[in-house]
Amino acid sequence: MNKEELFQEILKKQTYLCVGLDTDIKKIPKHLLKCPDPVFEFNKQIIDATIDHCVAYKPNIAFYEANGAKGWESLARTMEYIPENLFTIADAKRGDIGNTSSLYARAFFKNMKFHAITVAPYMGHDSVLPFLDFKGKWVILLALTSNPGSGDFQQLEVGKMKLYEKIIKSSLNWGSEDQLMYVVGATKATFLQNIRSIIPRHFLLVPGVGAQGGNLEEVSKFGLNDQGGLLVNASRSIIYASDNNDFAKQAGESAKKIQLEMETYLNKYG
Amino acid sequence: MNKEELFQEILKKQTYLCVGLDTDIKKIPKHLLKCPDPVFEFNKQIIDATIDHCVAYKPNIAFYEANGAKGWESLARTMEYIPENLFTIADAKRGDIGNTSSLYARAFFKNMKFHAITVAPYMGHDSVLPFLDFKGKWVILLALTSNPGSGDFQQLEVGKMKLYEKIIKSSLNWGSEDQLMYVVGATKATFLQNIRSIIPRHFLLVPGVGAQGGNLEEVSKFGLNDQGGLLVNASRSIIYASDNNDFAKQAGESAKKIQLEMETYLNKYG
Repeated sequence: MNKEELFQEILKKQTYLCVGLDTDIKKIPKHLLKCPDPVFEFNKQIIDATIDHCVAYKPNIAFYEANGAKGWESLARTMEYIPENLFTIADAKRGDIGNTSSLYARAFFKNMKFHAITVAPYMGHDSVLPFLDFKGKWVILLALTSNPGSGDFQQLEVGKMKLYEKIIKSSLNWGSEDQLMYVVGATKATFLQNIRSIIPRHFLLVPGVGAQGGNLEEVSKFGLNDQGGLLVNASRSIIYASDNNDFAKQAGESAKKIQLEMETYLNKYG
Repeated sequence: MNKEELFQEILKKQTYLCVGLDTDIKKIPKHLLKCPDPVFEFNKQIIDATIDHCVAYKPNIAFYEANGAKGWESLARTMEYIPENLFTIADAKRGDIGNTSSLYARAFFKNMKFHAITVAPYMGHDSVLPFLDFKGKWVILLALTSNPGSGDFQQLEVGKMKLYEKIIKSSLNWGSEDQLMYVVGATKATFLQNIRSIIPRHFLLVPGVGAQGGNLEEVSKFGLNDQGGLLVNASRSIIYASDNNDFAKQAGESAKKIQLEMETYLNKYG
């Protein structure tokens, strides 16, 4: 899916919500545990209930790896179930030397057919470029993350800028705005204005709204541009909206509430 | 396995070689492809042939993920096959927000029983600490990697030091020398002297000897300390020493050659 197609989906559905499929088998409703693949069954019902209110799904790969080979099967089934017009992000935060990054790209882009993968920038250009060799696929580079530890290194001064700014600027030589997005935590909404001045036209993936406490209006005000430019992720506040039999219905209502708020902001700031 | 136990293995076997099980199904000898699990069969024969010449095995997880759920099964079988007195490293380069890093720790430490995992430091302390919660397990933090892109960010000046030095120094507050090791690329052997002045007693994991061109004597001279303090990884130069039926025998000979060289350096510099 290219940038324009993603923007058209945002306009059509009036939402830039990404639903984080961070499905922990220890947290899903008990009655699902008798299904042959409980994690997939949970995801399937969450997808059915939220698909009209979002444009993207983002499974965090850790939740699947924690279940070993079975987890990879749940992930593969989930990816087969998600329709092609939904943007899919492997939240994997990978990054390794060139020949190894190529294998991660094969795993997520070719075998699993994800549109995008999150990549950690620490190892530099040749750890990222192999992902960009896959035509029509996206790298979402960690820039400024939503967790407390983002202050440890990402915001250090390197020369006349912060490390995360240096990373964003360097990465502009690696690929185009049709290949690169950036992770910017919602808990850092005030930084968004500055980041928008460096990359006015790129898409940003913003986690941290919901359970992590980020403010959606602030994020939208500083993050939206005239081509959408924003995917805001919510995971726990949607998928665990209820732990009873009505979990999917409640997830749908939680996603719809966010969609309605986003519709307002698209008109106000977009 | 604790630091002292690892050191004793090094003394006993007179080697600090780590064999990288970067097993690409596209590169293994054709006759193995008719086995039920060709990747495991390859690993098993490599392990049998090299086990007397090394103290550690390091599967790079990308090579297994590229094969999906089957890859995870090959990895699990490989881990079950490796005896407990060999130090095992999941070369995964993971790192995510706290609750997610916990799941990666569960995947590699609890389910797979690895002794250690490589972790990318970009997201800061709370992305690393969940791994350190597992008693008796190790985090091997990326400091200065062996690839060309390591120059992009790792060697930037932050205040009066380089970023990788800042990361090493910060991490000393997160865990002890019985919990933390550091990745330092062999292609950067001249940096080892400086790193040793910051962390004289920690173990270093040094990839990049062999196919990547690092010099083993230089690495040993600057890296060894009076408790060993060094694991040097070789992957391709051992496991792909031959692509014929004699691949395991050749791998064993390649590993033995390195072991003999290491024996000299242990006496000369250790």
